[in-house]
Amino acid sequence: MTYTVTFLPHDKVVEVGENESLIRTALEAGVHINASCGGSGVCGKCRVLIEEGQVAGGVSEHLSREDQDQGYRLACTAQVASDLTVRIPVESDMETSRLNQQAPARHTARAMHMDMEALKENGLFIPPVEKIFLDLDPAMEGDNQADVARIINHLRIAHDEHHLTMDLALIRKVPDIIREQDFKVTATIVRPVRKDGRNRIINIEAGDTTDRNFAIAVDIGTTTVYGQVLDLHTGEVLGQHGEFNGQISYGEDVISRIIYTEKGNGLEILHEKVVETINTVIGKCIKKGGVNRSEISTITLAGNSTMTQLLLSINPTYIRKDPYVPASILYPPFLAREIHLDLPEHTIALIYPGVSSYVGGDIIAGVMASGMYQSSELTLYMDIGTNAEIVIGHQDWMVCTAASAGPAFEGGGVKFGMRATKGAIEDFSIDPETYEPMIITVGNVKAKGICGSGLITLAARLLEVGVIDSRGKFNRELPTSRIREKDDIWEYVLVDKENTQIDRDITITEPDLDNLIRAKGAMYSAALTLLDEIGLGIQDVERIILAGGFGSYVDLESAITIGLLPEIEPEKVTYLGNGSLLGCKINCLTNALRRQVGEVVSMMTNFELATIPSYMDHYMGALFLPHTEMNYFPKVKARLEGLRK
Amino acid sequence: MTYTVTFLPHDKVVEVGENESLIRTALEAGVHINASCGGSGVCGKCRVLIEEGQVAGGVSEHLSREDQDQGYRLACTAQVASDLTVRIPVESDMETSRLNQQAPARHTARAMHMDMEALKENGLFIPPVEKIFLDLDPAMEGDNQADVARIINHLRIAHDEHHLTMDLALIRKVPDIIREQDFKVTATIVRPVRKDGRNRIINIEAGDTTDRNFAIAVDIGTTTVYGQVLDLHTGEVLGQHGEFNGQISYGEDVISRIIYTEKGNGLEILHEKVVETINTVIGKCIKKGGVNRSEISTITLAGNSTMTQLLLSINPTYIRKDPYVPASILYPPFLAREIHLDLPEHTIALIYPGVSSYVGGDIIAGVMASGMYQSSELTLYMDIGTNAEIVIGHQDWMVCTAASAGPAFEGGGVKFGMRATKGAIEDFSIDPETYEPMIITVGNVKAKGICGSGLITLAARLLEVGVIDSRGKFNRELPTSRIREKDDIWEYVLVDKENTQIDRDITITEPDLDNLIRAKGAMYSAALTLLDEIGLGIQDVERIILAGGFGSYVDLESAITIGLLPEIEPEKVTYLGNGSLLGCKINCLTNALRRQVGEVVSMMTNFELATIPSYMDHYMGALFLPHTEMNYFPKVKARLEGLRK
Repeated sequence: MTYTVTFLPHDKVVEVGENESLIRTALEAGVHINASCGGSGVCGKCRVLIEEGQVAGGVSEHLSREDQDQGYRLACTAQVASDLTVRIPVESDMETSRLNQQAPARHTARAMHMDMEALKENGLFIPPVEKIFLDLDPAMEGDNQADVARIINHLRIAHDEHHLTMDLALIRKVPDIIREQDFKVTATIVRPVRKDGRNRIINIEAGDTTDRNFAIAVDIGTTTVYGQVLDLHTGEVLGQHGEFNGQISYGEDVISRIIYTEKGNGLEILHEKVVETINTVIGKCIKKGGVNRSEISTITLAGNSTMTQLLLSINPTYIRKDPYVPASILYPPFLAREIHLDLPEHTIALIYPGVSSYVGGDIIAGVMASGMYQSSELTLYMDIGTNAEIVIGHQDWMVCTAASAGPAFEGGGVKFGMRATKGAIEDFSIDPETYEPMIITVGNVKAKGICGSGLITLAARLLEVGVIDSRGKFNRELPTSRIREKDDIWEYVLVDKENTQIDRDITITEPDLDNLIRAKGAMYSAALTLLDEIGLGIQDVERIILAGGFGSYVDLESAITIGLLPEIEPEKVTYLGNGSLLGCKINCLTNALRRQVGEVVSMMTNFELATIPSYMDHYMGALFLPHTEMNYFPKVKARLEGLRK
Repeated sequence: MTYTVTFLPHDKVVEVGENESLIRTALEAGVHINASCGGSGVCGKCRVLIEEGQVAGGVSEHLSREDQDQGYRLACTAQVASDLTVRIPVESDMETSRLNQQAPARHTARAMHMDMEALKENGLFIPPVEKIFLDLDPAMEGDNQADVARIINHLRIAHDEHHLTMDLALIRKVPDIIREQDFKVTATIVRPVRKDGRNRIINIEAGDTTDRNFAIAVDIGTTTVYGQVLDLHTGEVLGQHGEFNGQISYGEDVISRIIYTEKGNGLEILHEKVVETINTVIGKCIKKGGVNRSEISTITLAGNSTMTQLLLSINPTYIRKDPYVPASILYPPFLAREIHLDLPEHTIALIYPGVSSYVGGDIIAGVMASGMYQSSELTLYMDIGTNAEIVIGHQDWMVCTAASAGPAFEGGGVKFGMRATKGAIEDFSIDPETYEPMIITVGNVKAKGICGSGLITLAARLLEVGVIDSRGKFNRELPTSRIREKDDIWEYVLVDKENTQIDRDITITEPDLDNLIRAKGAMYSAALTLLDEIGLGIQDVERIILAGGFGSYVDLESAITIGLLPEIEPEKVTYLGNGSLLGCKINCLTNALRRQVGEVVSMMTNFELATIPSYMDHYMGALFLPHTEMNYFPKVKARLEGLRK
């Protein structure tokens, strides 16, 4: 059920779902309402007048009985219950034209969904691990071929399966299992990557178990490990779970983890820690999914190169040492038990290949999930985080690189920075006349801090109304007490301490903005450098794919305004979500993809930014909002000029 | 140095090597000399007169000074030292024609030798495991590809090696090893069986170690395990060793071993026992060969199906149970450590495939070593032992079967039967007038018993002179005290107790002959049945290959005379020796053979004799010396008739 909400005097119209809060609806329309408490209903500033239609809630001690009777409600606690006309009390005589130039409507990127039906229709839903029921003839006089030969010959003749092999460990079990249900068995087969490769039989079970065949997909993040259990019969996700990576206490980032492995049995410890985490994730997933551990045939894992080497117990020291060399790009399939995963002895583990020390399997998984390697459009793939990875290309070629963005996007190096959890300021608007803020927090509770996507929107809004300049410095002249100098640092007060959970004013400071500018500058200039190296310009980019938890929340217009993303139509930006996990999932479900991974890896050219002289120039040019070269951002330029005229 | 020895009055001439004993020279020429002590010099009966030339030794207290001056010597202790003319004292007036019809000259089968030079000339000396030195470019700025990719790309570009894979366990070691000698490494590669299969890199060593690459070949006999260490650089055997199979105390034959596995942890125990034995053999081999354990790249093992399954810890119970099903025909290559062999963690184990429960990898190894699968001649391959395996065929097809011959050929079920060790009667001749024996023992010592090949010669000689009839019964009428009845059993006294080591008369009895006849009957009728099944006759056989320890000693004429072997020219019989070990050796040295093994196995049709009704008829017909159907043995028939006329 969706309703139409019209905001006056702006005359902005927006469609929203039932029960959406009015304050979020306003922000979505780009309508500012003063609000300091993050949407928790305590500051009482977000009074609006319901002129037509019904809302639920929105009544508060901040509203007199009279106000209520007139139709005033608090926008933050009022929920849309019908088509509405809502008037925002505008405190000054603002021109309508000015009103319309305010905060632009929010556009987060479209989410990309995997189309299982298309996969099935195109005949690509052939998991790399399949079960086949074999109705064998029992051994008898005149037909006493060996048990394994009986299985292989039947697969060859009745199922057109060839190049079959079976490991010794399984051969050991065959003679007894094959007789358990009178030569009726189910064979589990791993498909080869090469079409003419070996079909490996990894399990033989008595009877027909073909309807119980499951896989696990795991994204091994430096911070968090996510897993899913998949039904290989239907392609459905039956359960999922995330856990903090148990290695965290040994270092926040990959470099400190690598350094930890260089001492004593550090490698062993970090291997054990991540395996423990993955085993917890597996346990939770299969419990949620109602799957028996013994029914898991395969697991696909992806992580950055350091996470991958720690998982596989491979010394990662050369990843961090010039010239930054990973152990391997491709890893062979192996038994999950070999790396101590708590899975059956026949379960096959597949590891996503990486490209270099800093463009790892997680990125390749995302590229595979995004389908950009099959597209004719020039695509910019960005995984935004402390380590930002960028891939540019299309079906014919791809280039990639990694840039160290610093932790600003993840709330690090920001005075009140935090992860995007409850209480994080995630959206913001500012009154261009009074400079009063509108604050929305995750969970509509009193604010605790600022998350990465909130920081981007903050910077964009502050830039638009001239609270900060293109270098990220506050305009000390503005007539508002919210801009202030404290302990020699200039800042803007977002929330007064009484409306926070932390009993301190929450502010955004110039050093915060510096860190943000450096982070977005590193990303943008990385993309620019890559494009430069292959003789293209930023205007050639036809499509952007955002990966990582960050991508789903970031307001695209804001990201463009500050120069994090190149100027592009919002509808050309897609949000992939956890691309690494999605890539693992697809790998579990279709062997066709697995066959393409090797090709993608071999067509991808890696650049080390440190070795490209122009990178530093591009980086210096990007340390402005949005950029020194305003011609890269013609629309932002026009809008900023319009707002400030 | 060879000399010509002429025996008078027989006028038989023979060429022998220097230092050959005169008594063996006589037997080789088919000349009878009375001799009871096995060649140990104690009975003094083997007086001969040296008419021309020089012998060494042969002087004894049994000869008076006068005799010695005349030129008499004991044949058993006299050694040929020049061309000789030797006169044998003939006790009666035997016709010369009769003399020449005596014991035929001995023809053991020609040994088959592997022609390393031909292998090298034909470009087939490409071991399945090869070492290649890689002079890699060190990683540097602008060339920081992954370590494993660096190795694989170099192999691809500089050495034209493709489809390369590396296991996780090795990838773990690469980053450190590759830097140990500045990116100079040696790669050990396992060749695939299929030409388009994967080349598996199993080891990376720092520096150039290409000149140190070794393999182990092991024949796992039910009784004895033989091993060799091979230089994969030259093809040379550097050391070899044999040990009794440690499983012996758990059962003499395969059936009792299988039964043992059916109780408690019997399979585990028998696996451990044979592994212990193999590990001892490996240890001795590499010590003798001056090879370091870490330098062993591969091991090839062959055994019958039961030995193979026990080695691989695979329940063998269905081998002995109707319808006699082995677990598998082919086994994949695996790590030697997987079956607890004391070899480096990278060493690859290859197992010879078998065909059925009773035609195992040892036979296939022998067939491969014999080259019969490449010959256009119809070949009869016989592995003579308690379990006799027979393969018939040529380059286009092959059939095989196994027959239970009983232990007579290995000295079992024979009153004075023993293995062919020191003191075993291995050759025999009998005076057709006096029925006095000529005995030669292994090692020329006093007799202890009769070995398998000796038993065959005994039966043939006794048959020729009419001491026994075609049913193996003694002629009770002959005027000699050597034929006697004792405890209701008829026997012929071979050695009086004073000339034995055991202080008892050594005899051959009718039950001994019965067992021999059943054993040879089982073998011959197995061959006949196989031929029958494929519409051929025994006369179509163009070539015979004898495998097993037995084959090298057996006198071919005797074997034909008793009907163990079909009538064929002795030069068409080849002795392969330990075909299983030889097959393993060739497998270690040439991958071309390995590729053919699968083809051979799949072209081979196995017959279970028990399911072929005609087998019993053929068997009954073969329980005569040489056979009920004398037309199968026209020359033997003629000779026997000639001798007895």
